[in-house]
Amino acid sequence: MAHTVQFLFDFGSPNAFLSHEAIPAIAARTGATFDYVPVLLGGIFKATNNRSPAETYAGVKNKREFHQLETERFVKRFKVKPYVWNPHFPVNTLNLMRAAVAAQLEGVFEQYVEAAFHHMWVEPKKMDDLDTAIAALNSSGLDGAKLLTRGQEAEVKAKLIANTQDAVERGAFGSPTFFVGKEMFFGKEQLREVEEMIAG
Amino acid sequence: MAHTVQFLFDFGSPNAFLSHEAIPAIAARTGATFDYVPVLLGGIFKATNNRSPAETYAGVKNKREFHQLETERFVKRFKVKPYVWNPHFPVNTLNLMRAAVAAQLEGVFEQYVEAAFHHMWVEPKKMDDLDTAIAALNSSGLDGAKLLTRGQEAEVKAKLIANTQDAVERGAFGSPTFFVGKEMFFGKEQLREVEEMIAG
Repeated sequence: MAHTVQFLFDFGSPNAFLSHEAIPAIAARTGATFDYVPVLLGGIFKATNNRSPAETYAGVKNKREFHQLETERFVKRFKVKPYVWNPHFPVNTLNLMRAAVAAQLEGVFEQYVEAAFHHMWVEPKKMDDLDTAIAALNSSGLDGAKLLTRGQEAEVKAKLIANTQDAVERGAFGSPTFFVGKEMFFGKEQLREVEEMIAG
Repeated sequence: MAHTVQFLFDFGSPNAFLSHEAIPAIAARTGATFDYVPVLLGGIFKATNNRSPAETYAGVKNKREFHQLETERFVKRFKVKPYVWNPHFPVNTLNLMRAAVAAQLEGVFEQYVEAAFHHMWVEPKKMDDLDTAIAALNSSGLDGAKLLTRGQEAEVKAKLIANTQDAVERGAFGSPTFFVGKEMFFGKEQLREVEEMIAG
C-alpha cells in the first residue's frame, strides 16, 4: 500500500529546504507521495508560544556548532546539497506562503515551490522585498506579480490561516513537520523515521 | 575493530536513564564498550548558558506531548522500560554525581550506577536528601554513607569538575551526550546513529 506523507513547510526554514531536497529520492525509494502543505511558521510560533531554534538557543555555547554538524550529517546521509545561508535571514515569508496557496489555485504549485526554495536557499535573495520576489519568480518562468497579487485575495489568506491552525491542532510547533496519517514527525532528522514508516 | 563509546551522564536526566537501559543490548550487538563518564549537568548548563528542555520549552504548546511521543518511540525501538517520573524532579544530583566518582575509586562503579539510576527512575526517591540516598544505596547492597562521604573529598570533587569542563570543551551542552572518538552525538534519539557508527 502506497503511503502519503504530509510535509508542512515554510520557505523561511532552511531545514524545510533540506527536507525538500531529500524528498524526491525518498519518494522514489518508497513509492510514497509527499503532499506539500504550505503553513506560516510565524503563525505556528505565535499559536504555540514557540520561537525559532536560532532565537531559543542564542547565546548557548556549542549549540550552533552541533546544529551545523547535524546539518552536515543530514547532507551526507541524504546526498543533498547544503543550503547557501540567506544573508537576509529571517525573511518574512507571509507573502511567499500566501503566493504558494495562490500557486495551488493557478496550477503551478510544484514549479512555484521549487522556485521559491531556490531563491531562498540556493541563490538566496531578500524575498520579502516585493520587487525582488517578483523578479526572482519571473526568472524561474513564473508570473511573479500575478501570484503575489492573488496571494492577497481573502480566500487565499484564509486558506493559509486554516492550514496553519490545523497544523497546530494536530500537534505541530515548528518546521519541518511531517504527518504519516496521524503520526507526527518533527525536524529534518526524523525524515529517516518517516522513511522507515512508509517503507515498513 | 571494537569501538569505545563515551557516555556522559547525570542521574538527574530521564533521557540518560533511558539511554542507560538501551546500552547493554547495543554493546552486545556491536561488541563496543561503553565508557560511563559522570558529569554534572547543572555545571554543563551553567558553562554553556543552557537550560533543561523542560525549562526552555515551558509554556510551548504541543512540545511536551511530542517529547512524550518521542519517548514512547524510543522505548519501543530499543525495547526498554519507560521511566517512572520522579515526583521530586528536578533532583539536585551534585552529591550523587560526586559519589559516582567515589564509586569509581572504590571499585563499585557499575553497581553504583545501576543503583542510582534505579532509585531515580525505577523506584524514584528524593535522592538529594542525604538520609534517603544513604538508605536507598544501602538497600542496593552498597555502603551509601561511605560513598557519599568520600564524595566530599577534594580529589573527588575536582574530578567531577574536570569531567564536566572537559565535556563542555569537547562540545557538550546537555544530556545525554555520546562520543565515538571525536564525533559527538546528543540526545537519546541519536543512540541509533551511535550504533550505526560503531557497527559500520
